[in-house]
Amino acid sequence: MPERGRYDRASIYSILDATFVCHVAYNIEQQPVITPTAYWRTDNWVYWHASSASRMLRCLEGGAKACFFANLLDGVVFARSGFNHSLNYRSVVAFGVAELVDDTEAKLAALREFSERLAPGRWDEVRSPSPQELKATTILRMELNEASAKIRTGGPGDAEADYLLTCWAGVLPIRMNVGVPETETGVPSTIPVPGYLSRLSIG
Amino acid sequence: MPERGRYDRASIYSILDATFVCHVAYNIEQQPVITPTAYWRTDNWVYWHASSASRMLRCLEGGAKACFFANLLDGVVFARSGFNHSLNYRSVVAFGVAELVDDTEAKLAALREFSERLAPGRWDEVRSPSPQELKATTILRMELNEASAKIRTGGPGDAEADYLLTCWAGVLPIRMNVGVPETETGVPSTIPVPGYLSRLSIG
Repeated sequence: MPERGRYDRASIYSILDATFVCHVAYNIEQQPVITPTAYWRTDNWVYWHASSASRMLRCLEGGAKACFFANLLDGVVFARSGFNHSLNYRSVVAFGVAELVDDTEAKLAALREFSERLAPGRWDEVRSPSPQELKATTILRMELNEASAKIRTGGPGDAEADYLLTCWAGVLPIRMNVGVPETETGVPSTIPVPGYLSRLSIG
Repeated sequence: MPERGRYDRASIYSILDATFVCHVAYNIEQQPVITPTAYWRTDNWVYWHASSASRMLRCLEGGAKACFFANLLDGVVFARSGFNHSLNYRSVVAFGVAELVDDTEAKLAALREFSERLAPGRWDEVRSPSPQELKATTILRMELNEASAKIRTGGPGDAEADYLLTCWAGVLPIRMNVGVPETETGVPSTIPVPGYLSRLSIG
């Protein structure tokens, strides 16, 4: 079974926690629109933020139906037939209605959680959001009530007869690679590259 | 200007040609649904394929509105304030109605084009689609009439006053890394790893 749906929390959470960029779809006058955004998970909720001026917010704050999608590409599967070529991946889809995190304290706590998830310790190093910045930031969250994962791993699922063909078959693995930090000009040389940067990973 | 929309064909095509996985959104009874899929571009069209039994096909073949989205994550931007943290990326969004590529010869030509785009030369090495396989494969395409690109590059856009803060700032680059091919057990040792695998890149 190279491809399977999974519905257990552990599978869903482990995929959601392996990346931090998702796609959210919603309708603007019956036209589906996709917006990619950074996100984070807390318990059974996914959170993302948006500009308070964004059209995504204007659509979703009214309770419109949304689709949340997180996807990790793990490889290209080369089969002995054109038909059986495939991709290895891990994905989570969730359907629901997003809600606003409106309370100022809850917004701050959520942003801190996102920051700590990506770069533990950084929140206390940088300037905290001003009241104006907090006002300009909207946080949305969606409960993972109608969520499922889909995972494909392993090699090609070739038909028995195709194993007689003399062509290469296998998997070309693909990973998100985090590179060497590029320090901005103007950062004093006394400030070291933070250790959390080397611990950030995707996938 | 770290973030900009672009509407010229060259910018849109260069992003579309840098990856081969997209997200497509469509409605099932007013519920937006996202499906990730492999795609390829030919002239001013994006193509993708699906199982003839897929619900995406059932929705789109009737002329439903679709949103096509291709996205490349290029980095995480660490600013001196929480608020100005950002992501570097290149994305293309296209709105429209998908159409079926129905003709058998056109389907075969499109699949060959996709294969040659990913792995030049492989199409002639593997078994061609049987009539049943071709029937089970649907090819959809959408013209890039209403398409735009969005690109963010460079370092953080910090406020002037924040440059006095003594925290690290810069970019953590992220790339899709294509790994070492994993040959499937059973492939005769006389068959070499094809050269096109080392030339496949994303981003």
